[in-house]
Amino acid sequence: MNKIKVGVIGATGMVGQNYLRLLADHPWFEVTYVAASPRSAGRRYEEAVAGRWLMTTPLPDQFKDLIVGDAGDINSAKGKCSVIFSAVSLDKEKVKELELAYAAEGFAVVSNNSAHRHTENVPMLIPEINHSHADIIPAQRKHYGWDKGLLAVKPNCSLQSYLTPIHALREKGYQIDRIIITTMQAISGAGYPGPATYDLLDNVVPYIGGEEEKTELEPLKIFGTIKEGKFIYDQSIQISAHCNRVPVIDGHTACVSMGFKGKRPEINEIVEIWENFTSLPQLLDLPSAPRQPIIVRHEVDRPQPRRDRDMDKAMAVTVGRLRECNVFDYRFVGLSHNTVRGAAGGAILMAELLTAKEYIK
Amino acid sequence: MNKIKVGVIGATGMVGQNYLRLLADHPWFEVTYVAASPRSAGRRYEEAVAGRWLMTTPLPDQFKDLIVGDAGDINSAKGKCSVIFSAVSLDKEKVKELELAYAAEGFAVVSNNSAHRHTENVPMLIPEINHSHADIIPAQRKHYGWDKGLLAVKPNCSLQSYLTPIHALREKGYQIDRIIITTMQAISGAGYPGPATYDLLDNVVPYIGGEEEKTELEPLKIFGTIKEGKFIYDQSIQISAHCNRVPVIDGHTACVSMGFKGKRPEINEIVEIWENFTSLPQLLDLPSAPRQPIIVRHEVDRPQPRRDRDMDKAMAVTVGRLRECNVFDYRFVGLSHNTVRGAAGGAILMAELLTAKEYIK
Amino acid sequence: MNKIKVGVIGATGMVGQNYLRLLADHPWFEVTYVAASPRSAGRRYEEAVAGRWLMTTPLPDQFKDLIVGDAGDINSAKGKCSVIFSAVSLDKEKVKELELAYAAEGFAVVSNNSAHRHTENVPMLIPEINHSHADIIPAQRKHYGWDKGLLAVKPNCSLQSYLTPIHALREKGYQIDRIIITTMQAISGAGYPGPATYDLLDNVVPYIGGEEEKTELEPLKIFGTIKEGKFIYDQSIQISAHCNRVPVIDGHTACVSMGFKGKRPEINEIVEIWENFTSLPQLLDLPSAPRQPIIVRHEVDRPQPRRDRDMDKAMAVTVGRLRECNVFDYRFVGLSHNTVRGAAGGAILMAELLTAKEYIK
Amino acid sequence: MNKIKVGVIGATGMVGQNYLRLLADHPWFEVTYVAASPRSAGRRYEEAVAGRWLMTTPLPDQFKDLIVGDAGDINSAKGKCSVIFSAVSLDKEKVKELELAYAAEGFAVVSNNSAHRHTENVPMLIPEINHSHADIIPAQRKHYGWDKGLLAVKPNCSLQSYLTPIHALREKGYQIDRIIITTMQAISGAGYPGPATYDLLDNVVPYIGGEEEKTELEPLKIFGTIKEGKFIYDQSIQISAHCNRVPVIDGHTACVSMGFKGKRPEINEIVEIWENFTSLPQLLDLPSAPRQPIIVRHEVDRPQPRRDRDMDKAMAVTVGRLRECNVFDYRFVGLSHNTVRGAAGGAILMAELLTAKEYIK
Repeated sequence: MNKIKVGVIGATGMVGQNYLRLLADHPWFEVTYVAASPRSAGRRYEEAVAGRWLMTTPLPDQFKDLIVGDAGDINSAKGKCSVIFSAVSLDKEKVKELELAYAAEGFAVVSNNSAHRHTENVPMLIPEINHSHADIIPAQRKHYGWDKGLLAVKPNCSLQSYLTPIHALREKGYQIDRIIITTMQAISGAGYPGPATYDLLDNVVPYIGGEEEKTELEPLKIFGTIKEGKFIYDQSIQISAHCNRVPVIDGHTACVSMGFKGKRPEINEIVEIWENFTSLPQLLDLPSAPRQPIIVRHEVDRPQPRRDRDMDKAMAVTVGRLRECNVFDYRFVGLSHNTVRGAAGGAILMAELLTAKEYIK
Repeated sequence: MNKIKVGVIGATGMVGQNYLRLLADHPWFEVTYVAASPRSAGRRYEEAVAGRWLMTTPLPDQFKDLIVGDAGDINSAKGKCSVIFSAVSLDKEKVKELELAYAAEGFAVVSNNSAHRHTENVPMLIPEINHSHADIIPAQRKHYGWDKGLLAVKPNCSLQSYLTPIHALREKGYQIDRIIITTMQAISGAGYPGPATYDLLDNVVPYIGGEEEKTELEPLKIFGTIKEGKFIYDQSIQISAHCNRVPVIDGHTACVSMGFKGKRPEINEIVEIWENFTSLPQLLDLPSAPRQPIIVRHEVDRPQPRRDRDMDKAMAVTVGRLRECNVFDYRFVGLSHNTVRGAAGGAILMAELLTAKEYIK
Repeated sequence: MNKIKVGVIGATGMVGQNYLRLLADHPWFEVTYVAASPRSAGRRYEEAVAGRWLMTTPLPDQFKDLIVGDAGDINSAKGKCSVIFSAVSLDKEKVKELELAYAAEGFAVVSNNSAHRHTENVPMLIPEINHSHADIIPAQRKHYGWDKGLLAVKPNCSLQSYLTPIHALREKGYQIDRIIITTMQAISGAGYPGPATYDLLDNVVPYIGGEEEKTELEPLKIFGTIKEGKFIYDQSIQISAHCNRVPVIDGHTACVSMGFKGKRPEINEIVEIWENFTSLPQLLDLPSAPRQPIIVRHEVDRPQPRRDRDMDKAMAVTVGRLRECNVFDYRFVGLSHNTVRGAAGGAILMAELLTAKEYIK
Repeated sequence: MNKIKVGVIGATGMVGQNYLRLLADHPWFEVTYVAASPRSAGRRYEEAVAGRWLMTTPLPDQFKDLIVGDAGDINSAKGKCSVIFSAVSLDKEKVKELELAYAAEGFAVVSNNSAHRHTENVPMLIPEINHSHADIIPAQRKHYGWDKGLLAVKPNCSLQSYLTPIHALREKGYQIDRIIITTMQAISGAGYPGPATYDLLDNVVPYIGGEEEKTELEPLKIFGTIKEGKFIYDQSIQISAHCNRVPVIDGHTACVSMGFKGKRPEINEIVEIWENFTSLPQLLDLPSAPRQPIIVRHEVDRPQPRRDRDMDKAMAVTVGRLRECNVFDYRFVGLSHNTVRGAAGGAILMAELLTAKEYIK
């Protein structure tokens, strides 16, 4: 099979670099185009990231000689690829326009950016949870008059540490109607350079701008339904989030208290549900899908970001410390890798899903 | 006034060293006795802590030549002091016996240890909250047949970051019936050496043995009442705690969601209550009392442990981020210095309170 | 005595804030003027640093209502103070001009900036080492045609951890002709925000731009002599420095190997020289002078930045691990607090020296 | 080819776990035996390390059911393997005896332990440097009367960050006669639990017991020659080392100043020598050999432990910042992964070399 040609826009930033790192040996996709700001445009990719390649593995040779395009110039991508992974960091309104413009030109746009997360016909996908939301794409295309183009987005990294375990229980018929979450989030989530050492050494910062709102609102769309080509948000669950920045390189940890409405499962049943949970990405054996999406640790002190973030290609969610809650029903701790599962890796998995569903060809 | 002679048992550990540091220039108390394990007994204090004085200020000269006693040998303290600050770390049952034995010999025992926290006639004091609990002492003395001896204990460090703000609202007539807390606790809370760097660098550990139970149960006694010489625990509040260890030297941070029963105050009223809160320690102008027990920060990203832990002799609780909660009523972040407010400093304040109330003479 | 009125320019940055913190209760100096960039000019100081007061003690009340001047506008300082502490961070050539202009207007300018460190008639002072260099000021005034103005500068923070111990040995007649140093420097030396957490968590960075050159060259002027109103650099010593950034908040550590020319002292003699070393600041009992400028630690593993940086108002140099070197004669480890001894505190001590010598009146 | 059966003694500690991790898919070796202290003996390996598997990849399935032997009981290893990787941590004299006893029983013993590093006929190998030292084995066998047994050891991790670059220059005929080194060493070098967070957060510790002596002495044996079945130490080079512990998980950094005797190469020649350096492990294409043993980084601020430690299976040495030294000739910074290149990985490479040379069969 010929590989599908993909481009990465915003390719010089931290998320962009993660895309390239993860796509280097991808069995279905081949990076044939990279773009960034006009400042980098026209340079070889290797030069453009000289002194700021942030990955701990070397820049793959295959990308060194790619000439960086101007992410704002859609024409420069034409003919070079059919999929655009968007990791641009611009003003939100500009991103909105730009991503629509790429889609209008026939590109399948898969985005990390938050700009279109609440656009009414744009799916926000965690493939293990709401893969069926991809099926809004025909309606989306019809609405915008696009032929081949499409736009799909990834939710915020902070919620990936707890939402799949919640979903797995809902799917078995257990209703969870209230969740209080406290996250301890890694610095890589803030991009580069991100927080100053002066702010995080011997310290934690109990605030991340905009993060609590995303953590509380985005799940309602993910758990939502499609009606007449638009997403209807789930109204059955209330979420409250405290988001903290901690001195951890990668891996967001979430302490979760959850309350059930109606009957609640026993602890051993929850463990069983989690350990046996699989979904369409596993059934389709998508290249980036973790074999086991939820890993349950039975030690008293896990999950921990440094020890668990890299499990199963850094695409699994690790949970532990499931126990009774004095106020709600149960408590647990969840963890996921924010720049892989929660960013570039999650987006690549989305693109794989869209390919398997033949929205991307 | 002649200073009251005090002894510190467990004087060579981290809490013991903090006692000495804080008592070095105390206006009411004078350290005349130190004791530790038999291994250290008989040595000059300076020698006993050679190479393991952990404070960042030098060992005060006045303590260097004190001869370390055996903490297990009550006779060696006799005649040397009338107050015993207990920071021993032994088996819980041994501590129970030992502290009672000191009190039986006429010492006023003020303890950091958890052994007697739930003994039915032993007050567990946060002086700004339940100073009146000190008045169980006559009943305690009567029960045990003690003449001058007494036993009072300090609660766990983890709850000091949120309990005074909760109390200040209750005192104004607002009932809070449910709290979900996530703490991010400093390593000094685990004593020395405490957690390995290998476990906490680029990491957080979502578990501290026994800490969640203490954080949930101890407030119920603190908010309790005295009946027939025993404490009756408060039944009106449910508390759920997630306790995490983070790479911070000193200062426990707590993310709190609280729910009110009946009417709830407005946000500006809460701020006003907190900023104006004072209690008996302030009224009595106790030497270790913070002038303002609750400091409210209005920046979006405070409190932070490194920046706020030392406020007002490290005895104040700093709060911030008061805002609505999607699930309960309000959320906030609280912070206190765990080895000062939450340990040695809090215990010294207790001893000051007991002195002002003339239980210690 | 009436206090001398001083101004701080560059007052909103990290060094500027340290100046204010240290000058809050100064017995000789009173801060009557603060200035910063035009962006801050005209605002109350409290507002100007709202959300970016970086000290761990609160902003002293006395500074809150000072109206921030424009550091580039010398007129706005006139009549308000006679001493200017310069912590501006501008282009080097601009600083050069600006500091000369302040001096020309009659201000005594004491600067942290590196711009004039190698100006031929500007003294670069570590008061315990080369206090006599202050006596170039009459020649300086004559050269520039200044009446009351003067300009004196502080050397780089990195060399303060090892130069006083070297000087103490030279002063006793021992010639040291070669030194190889490796520093491990704190992040506060880079100002705020300084290095990203992403660069320093679980990492060290073996490079600080310009730092090695300063560490190697500045001592030659400090050890130099005055001839015909100009400084002649010392030629007798060769210095090689490796400068590293490590994840430490405050405190620069230096590993030093030193070689003697001619006779060399015994180890116990060196210790004795260091422990007994005092200089003019101690003789004059200057307010910021450490009582003992060099503290020798005898434990095998000291000095350490977190444990030793605050010794003697954070103005002492702490040394330890003095031992034979396989290649040169001896090795030791030195440590000093970079933002106090190595920056604001050192500059205040200089101003005190200049006051005692009556160059500042 | 049938794989060679190997055992790991001291298999439950940090180095032992690294052995297993690295040997999991080894093309030549198969782990058929593990042993540890009597406390662990008799248990399944998975149970023996329950709650203390320290690697960030899961425990490989193939090791879970291995029954842990008693490392002190040589009989229990018999028939199970022919190579013993020793990572025991016992009293030095006991290790000496034990390793000799294993060799006497016919095992090829490859050790991380320091006990036999200066035994006169035991090779201490860095395969890229002194692979020819392996050829002392026939003399060793003759001396001890061993038939198939042998004993070879790995040097200390601290010197691997700089010794290969030094060797590469010596090999080209350049004599280096003096080196002053300052290391900044990772905590994993101290095993688990290793240094307390309380000692290394916001801190560095300028001392590691015994480390400087090893860093200075071991290179002299590695650069030595064999005469009459014994090692003669190199006398031509003087080494002085300052060893520091820094808050880094893995990766030792070394700042090196080196002086040449006789002619010295130009900087570009040094770079060329380093970049082109290969040795017997590369020629033999040993499975664990890095393709390029010395990687030269040209950025001003590299190497850095977090960014460079994993290069080429974590087996390469990365160097950078080559520049003139004011006191000696040149300076550079070297870095290697201490638990891979400097411990388990280096030992496995040694075993591969001994296999290629047919001392292990």
